[in-house]
Amino acid sequence: MAASAPSSSGNEPDPNSTNLRPPGSSYDAWCGVAHGCSRKLGMKICGFLQKNNNLEEKISSFKERSSKDLLDNSDRDSRFRRTETDFSNLFARDLLPAKNGEEPTMQFLLEVVDILTNYVRKTFDRSTKVLDFHHPHQLLEGMEGFNLELSDQPESLEQILVDCRDTLKYGVRTGHPRFFNQLSTGLDIIGLSGEWLTSTANTNMFTYEIAPVFVLMEQLTLKKMREIIGWPDGEGDGIFSPGGAISNMYSVMIARYKFFPEVKTKGMTAAPRLVLFTSEHVSLIQHSFPQQNRLHIQSHGVCLQGCVPMFVNATAGSTVYGAFDPIHEIADICEKYNMWLHVDGAWGGGLLMSRKHRHKLCGVERANSVTWNPHKMMGVPLQCSAILVRERGVLSGCNSMCAGYLFQPDKQYDVSYDTGDKAIQCGRHVDIFKFWLMWKAKGTIGFEQHIDKCLDLSHYLYTKIKGRKGYQMVFDGEPQHTNVCFWYLPPGIRDMPDGQEKREKLHKVAPKIKALMMESGTTMVGYQPQGDKVNFFRMVISNPAATRSDIDFLTDEIERLGQDL
Amino acid sequence: MAASAPSSSGNEPDPNSTNLRPPGSSYDAWCGVAHGCSRKLGMKICGFLQKNNNLEEKISSFKERSSKDLLDNSDRDSRFRRTETDFSNLFARDLLPAKNGEEPTMQFLLEVVDILTNYVRKTFDRSTKVLDFHHPHQLLEGMEGFNLELSDQPESLEQILVDCRDTLKYGVRTGHPRFFNQLSTGLDIIGLSGEWLTSTANTNMFTYEIAPVFVLMEQLTLKKMREIIGWPDGEGDGIFSPGGAISNMYSVMIARYKFFPEVKTKGMTAAPRLVLFTSEHVSLIQHSFPQQNRLHIQSHGVCLQGCVPMFVNATAGSTVYGAFDPIHEIADICEKYNMWLHVDGAWGGGLLMSRKHRHKLCGVERANSVTWNPHKMMGVPLQCSAILVRERGVLSGCNSMCAGYLFQPDKQYDVSYDTGDKAIQCGRHVDIFKFWLMWKAKGTIGFEQHIDKCLDLSHYLYTKIKGRKGYQMVFDGEPQHTNVCFWYLPPGIRDMPDGQEKREKLHKVAPKIKALMMESGTTMVGYQPQGDKVNFFRMVISNPAATRSDIDFLTDEIERLGQDL
Repeated sequence: MAASAPSSSGNEPDPNSTNLRPPGSSYDAWCGVAHGCSRKLGMKICGFLQKNNNLEEKISSFKERSSKDLLDNSDRDSRFRRTETDFSNLFARDLLPAKNGEEPTMQFLLEVVDILTNYVRKTFDRSTKVLDFHHPHQLLEGMEGFNLELSDQPESLEQILVDCRDTLKYGVRTGHPRFFNQLSTGLDIIGLSGEWLTSTANTNMFTYEIAPVFVLMEQLTLKKMREIIGWPDGEGDGIFSPGGAISNMYSVMIARYKFFPEVKTKGMTAAPRLVLFTSEHVSLIQHSFPQQNRLHIQSHGVCLQGCVPMFVNATAGSTVYGAFDPIHEIADICEKYNMWLHVDGAWGGGLLMSRKHRHKLCGVERANSVTWNPHKMMGVPLQCSAILVRERGVLSGCNSMCAGYLFQPDKQYDVSYDTGDKAIQCGRHVDIFKFWLMWKAKGTIGFEQHIDKCLDLSHYLYTKIKGRKGYQMVFDGEPQHTNVCFWYLPPGIRDMPDGQEKREKLHKVAPKIKALMMESGTTMVGYQPQGDKVNFFRMVISNPAATRSDIDFLTDEIERLGQDL
Repeated sequence: MAASAPSSSGNEPDPNSTNLRPPGSSYDAWCGVAHGCSRKLGMKICGFLQKNNNLEEKISSFKERSSKDLLDNSDRDSRFRRTETDFSNLFARDLLPAKNGEEPTMQFLLEVVDILTNYVRKTFDRSTKVLDFHHPHQLLEGMEGFNLELSDQPESLEQILVDCRDTLKYGVRTGHPRFFNQLSTGLDIIGLSGEWLTSTANTNMFTYEIAPVFVLMEQLTLKKMREIIGWPDGEGDGIFSPGGAISNMYSVMIARYKFFPEVKTKGMTAAPRLVLFTSEHVSLIQHSFPQQNRLHIQSHGVCLQGCVPMFVNATAGSTVYGAFDPIHEIADICEKYNMWLHVDGAWGGGLLMSRKHRHKLCGVERANSVTWNPHKMMGVPLQCSAILVRERGVLSGCNSMCAGYLFQPDKQYDVSYDTGDKAIQCGRHVDIFKFWLMWKAKGTIGFEQHIDKCLDLSHYLYTKIKGRKGYQMVFDGEPQHTNVCFWYLPPGIRDMPDGQEKREKLHKVAPKIKALMMESGTTMVGYQPQGDKVNFFRMVISNPAATRSDIDFLTDEIERLGQDL
């Protein structure tokens, strides 16, 4: 037996647990007793003991520092030089796993955390700018002390810390209460903690063997999501993927496999020419299917000779308008013609968490597959997207390779928990933990409150600008999601007669206001043209930090910056 | 103008910078002077001033605490109760952006960091176990205080902290010096810091507008990688993707687009039946092409009637054996028959950083595209994979949709920096920062040293066990990569005559030893069968924490656990 193998005797402290003091302390004795109690009670006692345990440690550490501080004033500088780390002579090679690397590693990580917590505080501070805009050439030329070029020789850890500060300084605060530019906004503190832990664990969702806890969390969370969709007992299948486009790609692949399984081995020649129907305003399905074989919903019924209609994508929350397709009506057609029904709820799926708004996805339980991105409306940090499938087995049927060098059926645990054969990836990032932790911390009702609040805010914006001078709505009626699409007409354009000249002028307004916004750094909102509609603002609200005052700020800012255009 | 818009007057402190003191302090005055100096000097002065600035702050904060501590001993408990946060009555809703949420947010994040830094310390401590194995049903039934189920109601932050501790406790320490189970191992402290920052920034690689710094870092890093591949002036294109399988999928898509661009709009009917050649032992290319249309390299020359050979995948570092295909010879064939040459260097690409080992990829500069995963051999945290393309423009030609609602050509900056139209994804996670930061911190030579060290270690293992009693190598000769594949024959099997019985017994040895290893938690190494070869161990070394003593530990452990099988 190797001399350095840890002992497995039961009386030794568990080397995997943190914050335990040496055996024999009152903490350990009491914790032993606590573990004999019922689970809930035992846990509470242990939590209490552990807290007080930490507390005592902190007290003594402070005591030490205090006495040094007050009793030995003359020596302060040298003492601080000793505890304060000089990073200018330290390099990556001095950190763990280097010999004696523990102390510099801890000091370095704490410095990084200091930078990050400062950033978090500023993110929520409305007197901080959303961004400090610079053009690409400016950043490439190098700002003071910030040089993006990579070199052969290492930089000191001091420079690395400067680089971290600068990276944040010249970036965009997507969690700022006045950042409205994307479908994914906000900085959830629990989600952030979850990501920090995920990157510290740095594992892979491939097998239970190397990600036991995360694999189970994924399984339970997917089941919960399927229950919320309305599939009986939450039965079915699913997986987290790197984003909505890839989740949608999964849906096309499994539908094709379901109808024409030989495609897996023989390629597309094993199937007739397949047709996919999708609504006009959808982005995420585009990459999975050639343009010509995509038909828009309003033209269904059209028959292409020799083609087989196979797949309908119903959009639940379109990117620009936030529109929801009528799922029940589409499901009727799919049943009649035996087509796969996919619901792309990348953006709108979150509304399923709200008793008030989930009716917008009415009929979703009839779908064969659903894309749902918690990283959008639910405020989970990017990336977090799920593809959910009603029928069990088709996901691994479609993607499995049963490669012996990837999965070993003769392992000691139940290998049905290995997820890799369902995925198109080998290494799969752990996207589940932050989401699971947020769900624990907020509860289902917490997500519901967040979603209801965002929809309330967009209702507030809609009613505020609907009849307001200078504003014109892009589509009629109350928005279904938080997307509020509008033109702002500066005074100089407002009274122009309708026509090409006005259109051309109006087309330039949103880009100009957006550019001024970014240069002043006060807020960010998206704009785009759509079909024959000239550039308009698309306001979306998924940011949990936003309030009515921020909505007011946005319209004030648009009016201020657009005044003289 | 909105009352709350921050002033943009030049004399005010920059609200985006951290750690600045109020104006008028000597720090600011001096920093102003420093900014007038040359870039390098100014930066150094500023760094020095900023450090001392922090130091002064820390001194006064300690002063405050110290005097309270010593001068008011009787009140200590109540004071500690005030600074010590009781998380049992706090919930996610009490954190930022909640009113008065700043203090609990900071306290909570610091508690999380305390858990994480403890975990990091233990990870590198050889007296800590690699894992604390439990079966799926055990974790699902719930360990003490650790319940994976999600509920409608929120849990307290105290419980959330317990959940974080338990998640790590029951997980696998992939950075442990004795974790050899995957191609991705290790816990790089700079990479970890980079991931923490990335998740704090929580943005998306889609446009320059929302990820200015990261987009430029990606561009510069890809150029550097292309230079290292050997493409003239580092010209070409590329993108970071969620993993090697998706990078390889990109290569197949762009090759198909290059030869048959109409596939993009008309689908596979616009192309003849395409054939792809790949080496036998490759995993990552599998999902992009139907099985029947994949031919193994050794059978090239075979002609399938009506098929067009289009694409050859040369593997640079196969998953199990770490074998490198002869790229020059394959490139000759590709040139002769006008086929796309892709080099899958997901695992072996890192060797390009080593002057000693890069000859194994000799000819890689003749490839049309290269997959290279820094998250494997280079120790970058998962996920970090690049697809590099020699010809500029073909990546966006293949994937662009030019959707007005995604990209606005009338933005104020040079929109050629927007990356989204190259990608098959919309939301794309920031995978670049940790890699860029590691490169800064280690330099090219740091990666080289890491790679040379890992290959030295595998050489050490190979020479150690090659002639050793009880060991048998799976393939002849020195391994090309760090993959060392071997059988361990317990004493009871060693002297059996060759034949089916011995094969059957030997087939069960590796799974049994692996199961015992996991149960004792001391180390982890992979095994698998391959073709007609029964289960063997595949040792791979990418872990920067591993030393010769850990290699010795592994063989000792295999012998200890396999002794009586």
